[in-house]
Amino acid sequence: MNLKTIDILAASRKLTAFAKKRKEDIGLSPDDISFRGERKMDTVYLRMVDYDANDFKEEIIEKVASVLIHQNNPTVTWFNIDGLHDTQVIEEIATGFDFDKLVLADVMDTHSRPKVREFSNCILLSIKMLQQDEESGRISVENLSLIMTESVLLSFQEKRGDVFEPVRERIRSQKKRIRNGGTDYLTFALLDIVVDNYIYIIGVLGEKIETLEETLLVNPGKGIVDEIYTYKRKLNFLRKNITPAKEMILSLSKLESELIDESSHVHFKELLDNIQQANDSSDTYRDILSDQLNIYHTTISTKLNDIMKFLTIFSVIFIPLTFIAGIYGTNFDVVPELKYEYSYFIMWGVMIVVAIGMLLYFKKRKWL
Amino acid sequence: MNLKTIDILAASRKLTAFAKKRKEDIGLSPDDISFRGERKMDTVYLRMVDYDANDFKEEIIEKVASVLIHQNNPTVTWFNIDGLHDTQVIEEIATGFDFDKLVLADVMDTHSRPKVREFSNCILLSIKMLQQDEESGRISVENLSLIMTESVLLSFQEKRGDVFEPVRERIRSQKKRIRNGGTDYLTFALLDIVVDNYIYIIGVLGEKIETLEETLLVNPGKGIVDEIYTYKRKLNFLRKNITPAKEMILSLSKLESELIDESSHVHFKELLDNIQQANDSSDTYRDILSDQLNIYHTTISTKLNDIMKFLTIFSVIFIPLTFIAGIYGTNFDVVPELKYEYSYFIMWGVMIVVAIGMLLYFKKRKWL
Amino acid sequence: MNLKTIDILAASRKLTAFAKKRKEDIGLSPDDISFRGERKMDTVYLRMVDYDANDFKEEIIEKVASVLIHQNNPTVTWFNIDGLHDTQVIEEIATGFDFDKLVLADVMDTHSRPKVREFSNCILLSIKMLQQDEESGRISVENLSLIMTESVLLSFQEKRGDVFEPVRERIRSQKKRIRNGGTDYLTFALLDIVVDNYIYIIGVLGEKIETLEETLLVNPGKGIVDEIYTYKRKLNFLRKNITPAKEMILSLSKLESELIDESSHVHFKELLDNIQQANDSSDTYRDILSDQLNIYHTTISTKLNDIMKFLTIFSVIFIPLTFIAGIYGTNFDVVPELKYEYSYFIMWGVMIVVAIGMLLYFKKRKWL
Amino acid sequence: MNLKTIDILAASRKLTAFAKKRKEDIGLSPDDISFRGERKMDTVYLRMVDYDANDFKEEIIEKVASVLIHQNNPTVTWFNIDGLHDTQVIEEIATGFDFDKLVLADVMDTHSRPKVREFSNCILLSIKMLQQDEESGRISVENLSLIMTESVLLSFQEKRGDVFEPVRERIRSQKKRIRNGGTDYLTFALLDIVVDNYIYIIGVLGEKIETLEETLLVNPGKGIVDEIYTYKRKLNFLRKNITPAKEMILSLSKLESELIDESSHVHFKELLDNIQQANDSSDTYRDILSDQLNIYHTTISTKLNDIMKFLTIFSVIFIPLTFIAGIYGTNFDVVPELKYEYSYFIMWGVMIVVAIGMLLYFKKRKWL
Amino acid sequence: MNLKTIDILAASRKLTAFAKKRKEDIGLSPDDISFRGERKMDTVYLRMVDYDANDFKEEIIEKVASVLIHQNNPTVTWFNIDGLHDTQVIEEIATGFDFDKLVLADVMDTHSRPKVREFSNCILLSIKMLQQDEESGRISVENLSLIMTESVLLSFQEKRGDVFEPVRERIRSQKKRIRNGGTDYLTFALLDIVVDNYIYIIGVLGEKIETLEETLLVNPGKGIVDEIYTYKRKLNFLRKNITPAKEMILSLSKLESELIDESSHVHFKELLDNIQQANDSSDTYRDILSDQLNIYHTTISTKLNDIMKFLTIFSVIFIPLTFIAGIYGTNFDVVPELKYEYSYFIMWGVMIVVAIGMLLYFKKRKWL
Repeated sequence: MNLKTIDILAASRKLTAFAKKRKEDIGLSPDDISFRGERKMDTVYLRMVDYDANDFKEEIIEKVASVLIHQNNPTVTWFNIDGLHDTQVIEEIATGFDFDKLVLADVMDTHSRPKVREFSNCILLSIKMLQQDEESGRISVENLSLIMTESVLLSFQEKRGDVFEPVRERIRSQKKRIRNGGTDYLTFALLDIVVDNYIYIIGVLGEKIETLEETLLVNPGKGIVDEIYTYKRKLNFLRKNITPAKEMILSLSKLESELIDESSHVHFKELLDNIQQANDSSDTYRDILSDQLNIYHTTISTKLNDIMKFLTIFSVIFIPLTFIAGIYGTNFDVVPELKYEYSYFIMWGVMIVVAIGMLLYFKKRKWL
Repeated sequence: MNLKTIDILAASRKLTAFAKKRKEDIGLSPDDISFRGERKMDTVYLRMVDYDANDFKEEIIEKVASVLIHQNNPTVTWFNIDGLHDTQVIEEIATGFDFDKLVLADVMDTHSRPKVREFSNCILLSIKMLQQDEESGRISVENLSLIMTESVLLSFQEKRGDVFEPVRERIRSQKKRIRNGGTDYLTFALLDIVVDNYIYIIGVLGEKIETLEETLLVNPGKGIVDEIYTYKRKLNFLRKNITPAKEMILSLSKLESELIDESSHVHFKELLDNIQQANDSSDTYRDILSDQLNIYHTTISTKLNDIMKFLTIFSVIFIPLTFIAGIYGTNFDVVPELKYEYSYFIMWGVMIVVAIGMLLYFKKRKWL
Repeated sequence: MNLKTIDILAASRKLTAFAKKRKEDIGLSPDDISFRGERKMDTVYLRMVDYDANDFKEEIIEKVASVLIHQNNPTVTWFNIDGLHDTQVIEEIATGFDFDKLVLADVMDTHSRPKVREFSNCILLSIKMLQQDEESGRISVENLSLIMTESVLLSFQEKRGDVFEPVRERIRSQKKRIRNGGTDYLTFALLDIVVDNYIYIIGVLGEKIETLEETLLVNPGKGIVDEIYTYKRKLNFLRKNITPAKEMILSLSKLESELIDESSHVHFKELLDNIQQANDSSDTYRDILSDQLNIYHTTISTKLNDIMKFLTIFSVIFIPLTFIAGIYGTNFDVVPELKYEYSYFIMWGVMIVVAIGMLLYFKKRKWL
Repeated sequence: MNLKTIDILAASRKLTAFAKKRKEDIGLSPDDISFRGERKMDTVYLRMVDYDANDFKEEIIEKVASVLIHQNNPTVTWFNIDGLHDTQVIEEIATGFDFDKLVLADVMDTHSRPKVREFSNCILLSIKMLQQDEESGRISVENLSLIMTESVLLSFQEKRGDVFEPVRERIRSQKKRIRNGGTDYLTFALLDIVVDNYIYIIGVLGEKIETLEETLLVNPGKGIVDEIYTYKRKLNFLRKNITPAKEMILSLSKLESELIDESSHVHFKELLDNIQQANDSSDTYRDILSDQLNIYHTTISTKLNDIMKFLTIFSVIFIPLTFIAGIYGTNFDVVPELKYEYSYFIMWGVMIVVAIGMLLYFKKRKWL
Repeated sequence: MNLKTIDILAASRKLTAFAKKRKEDIGLSPDDISFRGERKMDTVYLRMVDYDANDFKEEIIEKVASVLIHQNNPTVTWFNIDGLHDTQVIEEIATGFDFDKLVLADVMDTHSRPKVREFSNCILLSIKMLQQDEESGRISVENLSLIMTESVLLSFQEKRGDVFEPVRERIRSQKKRIRNGGTDYLTFALLDIVVDNYIYIIGVLGEKIETLEETLLVNPGKGIVDEIYTYKRKLNFLRKNITPAKEMILSLSKLESELIDESSHVHFKELLDNIQQANDSSDTYRDILSDQLNIYHTTISTKLNDIMKFLTIFSVIFIPLTFIAGIYGTNFDVVPELKYEYSYFIMWGVMIVVAIGMLLYFKKRKWL
């Protein structure tokens, strides 16, 4: 195993690090609005989209105040906050929207488990967003928090990204259904992208796993085991993220709240189906990987057995021949055969007969 | 392993590809009526059967409009659409029957998970239909969607096929119960065929698995492991399709809807029993395959052990004999035995005694 | 592995064949009263027992009509039909008792899963009846269907048998509780015999498994693995039959129906306990079999390792001795030792010392 | 494996024999009051304790009638019957207390599964009582049945024993809470002892398992595998008894009955916690045993590999040396080296160089 | 394996010892207030914190009476008892607060399972508190019991410790939410620290497991298996503690009681999420350990196979060469080749050709 392997493992190790606790964080108050994650960008980036069936406005804003004025409008306002480290911004939001302190403390804790929480004036959702870097193949994890109120949806991302661009695109084109929906429909649209990314990433991984299969049959080198274990770990990592997300979406699809329109439940059920499908796929690939490991071991051990059998049979054939030669290498004064003129040739004949006989015997017993 | 194996694996790889997502499909609106599957036929093929207890009419139609007129008739109309790629036809249906856009968007998404969805004026069902090509033995998967309204049942298939011919036959013969049932009974009849096909395919696979057993005992060649893994994967593929179908039928059998008559519930329960039985069978065959793998490995390793033991014992017997010959091949000036006239024959005698002694010892310890 | 093994496997293969579907049966109407099983006897055999607390009558009858007259009597009538292939008899029953067509179609489908179905005028039960042939040890499977009405219990068996004789005996003797019970108590009595047979068969199998253990320790021949796998498969077969039967009895014990008296529920619960016990036993035996397989493999591999270790050590001891002899077999002009008078004897001495030294070394390292 | 092993296995075999059915018992009426167990003592032994908060009386009685007079007293009467084979005594009880025949038939069936059954005038409980013989280490199983009425608790044991002595002791000392409780509290006190015995036995077994660990590391002889399997089986046996007991206590803790005071539920919940703890411990020990088996196999195979590697390397070093000696043992007329005076010594030199070179090579590749 | 290993195992053995029962404890009355644990400190240490939104008082007290006076105050009083062995103190508490005797008997039983029990005037909680000694790395287990009343929270620890210092700190600083909460919020704060410690300990263990990975790849010595098993056991130990704690917190989060304010439920749900996350992490690490074991075994067996293959091939090459030398070591009178002048050199040539030919053959078959 080489440096590359260690790299892979180091990378995958990072994957597992989602539930650690620093000694000094033990006993913090749950409503302390302090950032507990890794700072992933420099400045907080605020975007706002405000729309209803007829109008539509998109803005990059500087101050939280610019959003607050939309709070009681009938239009849907989507307020996207990229970057969580600026405590002041977060506190302005908490005060401006009159959220329970707990809501934003939760948003700041990027290591928390996917969840749905209902508060008096909002619903808080959080989910892990997975994205695959097309070039390096690395999967990045980011905590996405959504706060849903009557007319505003706040989405919090750890770093700036364009993953929700298709939703913005749909909002921009007037014909789409999203323009007639409320914040619940918008929530669905965002979660839908998160789940689609799960399916996409599993699909990409799955393709690699399937390609592995051919390598496995044609040329099963030693590196293949490392690869299988790397994929296995990646898959486990995906599963560990998908399972709680599934629970979260299940809770969401069952949630009875004024903020969620009856007609949106069908969408959340659809979402549940999709994430279930992601789960099914990952099960399938896990089974395949496990079969691949077994096939690899069978192949390797069959090959070794064949070599050992061949070599052993080869040695065994020479053993009686060397013994015969040994007999006539003895220096006894009287060994009658030694005197006879054709003895040497007879010895060769006997040796050939013995060797062929043994070969035939092994053949007959199907050892060759 | 040979090309054939790779073929098998390529085929089975296709089997697993049921949950992939193209990068460009992420973020599509869920009610976009666009075809997201593989186009499997050229032109859309529309068939209609219209019946009640007394009358019966069967037609190949050209326009969706020909069906719409039956919409409010008391007769049962079964409208079968083969081919989903013609967006215009689908949109005509959506408008004509006043379906939610979501309903037909779902029908067009052939990769979706089996499901039941209740809408205001219809129930949408989807299920994977498996069919075995009798010649090639290939199993084809197709998404079947059913939309049930008060008097019309729409069935959407990806390609033209005669799998529902027995139902048409039952409709044609006036005596059958189906002529007295509504769209719910017709739905049951179609799903029944789907489930029967599951059982049939598992049965065919099971027969092959059982035949394998004899090969395993009589002549366990190397190819057998490949076969076992191929069957294992096929079985897994079947299970992955049957499990969500079972969930779907369970939901259906519990669904309280005006569209489903009380008397139909007993049929849906029957269906649930049948699919449960399919599941049980596949469990049985999975256990058998797993036992077969174990038996194979035991057989192979027992055989190898026997060979190795034989060869080792064979070698071991010659080792002291060759040593004795070596002793009397030394060129010391004084080796008293060398002078004695019968030494050579005595040496042979000693060798034979040693060899027989060792054989007896091995026999006694049950090593032979 | 020999012909006997193949026989065993052929037999056990038959065991798995309980969920097959013929191609031509796909799409049959569920209320077609046609026999879908294997014909196991020549003529249908009809028996009737009619009793209440005071009176009792037992008859072999020729015509269904003879039973129909008891339909509205307050006495309990037990009507036993052996053989299902005579469609006419079955249809007479359907008409005579005014059963839904579905009820008797279900009775005729001997491959169906154990179930309870409530109809407007009856309850249909079906369960697999297992019986062990005392001589051959073969386990035969038969589908038992019971139709319970207010005053008549119809029992359908695939072939003639005396398995319910103890119940008839209890009915004959006036004192027994069964004479005061209704059709629900009679149903319990019949099912009780079916479940008792499950427990009995598992017990017999278990005894064989326990006997195997001794063979395993005293003389673990190769045939033992075949035996273990045969028992394993038999056990799996039993489990596959018991599990759905347990579900069925659970449904029955929870069924709220006018046909089942409150006081009978305690009996059905008892039944559930018994079948749960059968399940527990089969779990125990499965664990034992799995342990036996592991012990066998450990024993075999320990034995092989011992042999190989012995043989290897034996060879290794001769290797340096043969090397020494080889040294003094060289024909160099000057080999000083060869000239010395006692060289030959010294060589022997050295060889003995080397051999003993090696033995002691191996002993010290606990290799011997 | 030796006679001792067979003894152990014979003993453990007995452990599994708790669900057998004799052929002749199939079809017996469930309310036949006949003893279906093994007779474990000669005469039935009847004890009675009668108490309330103030008074207390303890008697060995001869006739069931002596208990019946307490039936309607407000005091709590505990009636302990040791030995179930005397049908007459049992029938006197049934008549005297006016129990359903089923109740006492159940008590007589000592092979039944732990259960709770509510009857019109009593609650029937049964549970397996495990006891460890301190000397032989044998675990004995006994069926304990309890019948709880308003003022009398009947306890049925298969043989005489002093396991409930601590409860009697608590009754004797006036201060204890038990004196203020009803039959429900007494029931709890008895079951508590049964569950405490489960925990105790698991603890004793666990200690042996933990001791095994040291033996495993210091001196892993062959007998250790037998021991591990014996403990594994004992543990399985315990689990098979604890699991249904847990179900039984769960039912009991949920039972709504006039006979069980509200305040007793907290005790039954405590009991449930205790038996859950027993279950957790047995899980822990099962994991430990399974790890021990794996460690054993790893240790053994590592040891064997080391031996084989050593021996192989030893042989390999002599192979080229013997070859060189062979070369100069040839009898060619012209072999120039043979004539040279120091050839023999040079040969030795070459041999030593080759041997050391090989050793260094093996060392470098970390094979030694 | 060495002494260190035995130490590790001895330590881990202690970990499993949490469900033992002494023979003499069987049958004790459940409300006996007697200490059933291990005495871990000398004198009982009593601390009291009394606070409301405005005021705050912290005291080390000598007598239970000093707390009792706060019993009916509206302020929240937190009474911390370190050390459970002083029965008199415990009884004073029981009398002073008028608790059911069962409550304090439960507190004294430090081996009990985590639980929630509702009594008329209090709620009893118990949970295992795990703490890691930073230096030795040892994990210590301690039973924490909490009794919650309207205005007093009693916390019982087995030994003195500063684990709850952060909570005291939060109480001291007036701004924190805890000052506005009741005993339910305080309960949450304490449990939160317990759960945070679970997560922290799993994280520390996880880091070691991840470090192991590199050692595994770079230098997989024999000690690594011991380490893996030690971590595996530690992880199992953690899981065995976390699982019942999870159940306890689940019960708590569902508990409907006057003592728990509606607004506290969101905190208990948060707690549940956290402990679920701890559980997920431990699952992840268990999978990793299991993969590591597999990788280790694969690595070791690959290495051994490589050595064996090399050595076998090495031996096999010399076998025909030694045979050839043996042929020309025979002493036949007529061996024509011996006379020819260049025979010896030709023999060398043939030998070299044979050796190279064999090497090429092995290379071609990819055995080298």
